[in-house]
Amino acid sequence: MPQEMYFEDFFPGQTFDSERSYRVSAKEIISFGEKYDPQPFHIDETAGKNSFFSGLCASGWLTAAIVMRLRVESIKVAGGMIGAGVEEMRWTQPVRPDDSIRTQAEILQVRHSATRPEYGVIRSQTTVFNQRDEVVMRSIVNWLAPLRDKK
Amino acid sequence: MPQEMYFEDFFPGQTFDSERSYRVSAKEIISFGEKYDPQPFHIDETAGKNSFFSGLCASGWLTAAIVMRLRVESIKVAGGMIGAGVEEMRWTQPVRPDDSIRTQAEILQVRHSATRPEYGVIRSQTTVFNQRDEVVMRSIVNWLAPLRDKK
Repeated sequence: MPQEMYFEDFFPGQTFDSERSYRVSAKEIISFGEKYDPQPFHIDETAGKNSFFSGLCASGWLTAAIVMRLRVESIKVAGGMIGAGVEEMRWTQPVRPDDSIRTQAEILQVRHSATRPEYGVIRSQTTVFNQRDEVVMRSIVNWLAPLRDKK
Repeated sequence: MPQEMYFEDFFPGQTFDSERSYRVSAKEIISFGEKYDPQPFHIDETAGKNSFFSGLCASGWLTAAIVMRLRVESIKVAGGMIGAGVEEMRWTQPVRPDDSIRTQAEILQVRHSATRPEYGVIRSQTTVFNQRDEVVMRSIVNWLAPLRDKK
């Protein structure tokens, strides 16, 4: 288990691989779809076949949630990872039942927070791969990390 | 129930209010947190108290998922709403147990797709309010809508 990280521990070019792959079942796709994204291609195999996606696929918001899970497991920010916002997120390939996804995060930039002197802002890019190493999602996300050496 | 909409039905300045408010329970916050964002302030009331957020609050990814639900209910794109990507997403206030959230979407831009001639791209801004009319999230999202009059 990685140790808790502070602002001072992050630097541009640093990378974090997810500690595991996450297998996405049809059950999880349908359960999430029924709750949050009830469209034919996210909740029904047959209806999905006649849709844009030619089959069942995960809501992009389920993929994003799983990516958060993998990121939280692999980057242990002291006090928790506090999201400051998403700059960009793209779904480049459908995620299908039984796909296994993994993430690779790269730190792009670190800077002190203008509004919260006890925090820094970490700008990171996450690339999400399936089991065939195809990119299924990319995102640029900012989060806060506390300063170890408080001013 | 709104009728199915095609590319030709969207225009800049058009707005869509969610058809209802969505009440976010502590149970849903914790259940989503345990699955996808297992951090103290998303899964445990007591641990949350000593955190950045001074209490339990919803994962930003749960809020985003609920916003997708409200958007899907209020904007019925023919064949389904196919996400083309997020340009920006910001969480501006924590969403707390028993908050009720609603959305207001505005169409910013419509254009034909360069790569898929049978689709157009709709660029939209969504503002998310709680029951005190405070903005809890903002996003700019693009989605595809099929052309009614195929080329």
